[in-house]
Amino acid sequence: MTLSEIRALCAAPLPGDEAAAQAVAARQASLTKPPGSLGRLEELAAWLARWQGREMPRLERVAVLVFAGNHGVVARGVSPYPPAVTAQMVANFAAGGAAINQLSAVAGATLRVLPLQLDRPTADFTTAPAMTEAEFAAAFAAGHDAVLPDMDLLCLGEMGIGNTTAGAALAAALFGADGAASLGAFWAGRGTGVDDAGLRRKRAAIDAAIALHGAALGDPLEAARRLGGHEMAAILGATLAARRHRVPVLLDGFVCTAAAAPLFRLSPRGHDGGLDHAMVAHVSAEHGHRALLGRLGMVPLLDLGLRLGEGSGAALAVPLLRAALACHAGMATFAQAGISGAAE
Amino acid sequence: MTLSEIRALCAAPLPGDEAAAQAVAARQASLTKPPGSLGRLEELAAWLARWQGREMPRLERVAVLVFAGNHGVVARGVSPYPPAVTAQMVANFAAGGAAINQLSAVAGATLRVLPLQLDRPTADFTTAPAMTEAEFAAAFAAGHDAVLPDMDLLCLGEMGIGNTTAGAALAAALFGADGAASLGAFWAGRGTGVDDAGLRRKRAAIDAAIALHGAALGDPLEAARRLGGHEMAAILGATLAARRHRVPVLLDGFVCTAAAAPLFRLSPRGHDGGLDHAMVAHVSAEHGHRALLGRLGMVPLLDLGLRLGEGSGAALAVPLLRAALACHAGMATFAQAGISGAAE
Repeated sequence: MTLSEIRALCAAPLPGDEAAAQAVAARQASLTKPPGSLGRLEELAAWLARWQGREMPRLERVAVLVFAGNHGVVARGVSPYPPAVTAQMVANFAAGGAAINQLSAVAGATLRVLPLQLDRPTADFTTAPAMTEAEFAAAFAAGHDAVLPDMDLLCLGEMGIGNTTAGAALAAALFGADGAASLGAFWAGRGTGVDDAGLRRKRAAIDAAIALHGAALGDPLEAARRLGGHEMAAILGATLAARRHRVPVLLDGFVCTAAAAPLFRLSPRGHDGGLDHAMVAHVSAEHGHRALLGRLGMVPLLDLGLRLGEGSGAALAVPLLRAALACHAGMATFAQAGISGAAE
Repeated sequence: MTLSEIRALCAAPLPGDEAAAQAVAARQASLTKPPGSLGRLEELAAWLARWQGREMPRLERVAVLVFAGNHGVVARGVSPYPPAVTAQMVANFAAGGAAINQLSAVAGATLRVLPLQLDRPTADFTTAPAMTEAEFAAAFAAGHDAVLPDMDLLCLGEMGIGNTTAGAALAAALFGADGAASLGAFWAGRGTGVDDAGLRRKRAAIDAAIALHGAALGDPLEAARRLGGHEMAAILGATLAARRHRVPVLLDGFVCTAAAAPLFRLSPRGHDGGLDHAMVAHVSAEHGHRALLGRLGMVPLLDLGLRLGEGSGAALAVPLLRAALACHAGMATFAQAGISGAAE
């Protein structure tokens, strides 16, 4: 897969199945509840129908994919944890000891973790593009190929020491920061918990990168290549593949959302948006996520102060979708139950 | 159970188990995640520990109790649905066709529905107290006795045509409305979907009731008796019984929260609050719920625009608690996983 092939794929997002979504809305209106009283559960049923292309959506095969990568920008002192923790956490995922293992089980989802070149971190993006075109395309393809057509829902997550700095840099490149003196100050947050000095280093790294890469960042894919990471490129590829395979996507937190955001910017006018098949599962406590969701016009399902990554928020939201479908499929209609309607 | 016996029970809420909550916090700090990064999931684990009185809380027996009652105030034209719908929905619960049936199944909870005197509605509280002392005590006892000591979590819900008017009247009596010209205008909402004329009738009914009952409403139990309903008195009784039996409670929407709110007002100073063992599962789209939660100092777990009642929001939140406990019990510690800590 080359960069121009990737670009062509991004430019032609598959439309949603409007008829399936309309069928859901019609059935919802007949169920034994005041119209609209299930709130966003009704919206979720219609969203799953639209992007699965099924009037009766299903959640039999729910997949959690977690991509892991390492980041050269950690040389700038942007994380309190050493880069070795990325591989240590991948081992923890394999051993079943991480939060995402427990949350995937509660969600009834299968978890797959894909470490990407952990011993070959990206370049420090304050001095060079994070990835070569070949590296970016390979990571994108790894994510793309991990999505299978028989998935009913895809939850995406990431692990990578230093990657909130990369996520903030990518968000800054894609969306700027209206009137803010420093893009770094606007988008950088404390990630896993940097102190004040670390936060200043994160801001400075982001501002340096934006200055270094300059006009090249006007292209969303170039921004992803120059500022992102292997795991972030894989999330981009997986999100695009999900659209092609009619698999709705739950995005996780700040890094995951930023990684997928180039699809939003690459959408051609007059089409369904390139991220319309993705819902953001939760708004993270990481500074910048709320602002990023505002730019994307996304309303999170959960707001519980999580800031862990790993796909934790995405897995946590899966039972809400199961609840939406259970109501949609299992409730009686007014006619079936013999219940009086509202007065005219 | 007499009113004075009820009053004595409300005045002595059992304290929480601070040692169990502290043990949860200590273990959370050792798990393989940045400190605090699971956000409110960490808080939920500690809350369950505090009110179950167990360092390792469990959710094996989750109960949903839905109480149903009818309201004389429907004579004031406050609902678009006829009162017969209360019994029709109870039949729908029994047949498995309602939202709460599906949501209880997703939650892994057992559902029990208790219709209370459906053929003997409360009196129209714009002209008389809704219940006699004996009626109130009987409904309270029905709720109290439905709570069993072996429950690990209790989700509460209600069904009753007209009861958003009763809930708003009770909220108005308990909390007033700083500076608002009309308590009815401040607290009344559209319930199952009244039109503008119906909303005006709701507001007028509430204002008339507050004027009629006057100073008697200064006593929270009297307010519950004069303005509430059988199902609301039962929720009050069940919430109190849960405290005595060390069963944490998930409250549902506006009516359910208002029904339990007298326990907040009756708490003696210097104790854990009378509602501290209850968490509000979601903030309803019903006007007034957000204001009520503000008065109670409660932060909802979900905000998804539901306004159905039936315990639907409470059941919907159960998987979040399961997720919190799964992480708490199942995650590896840093030491077990051999993961490097943060730099000092």
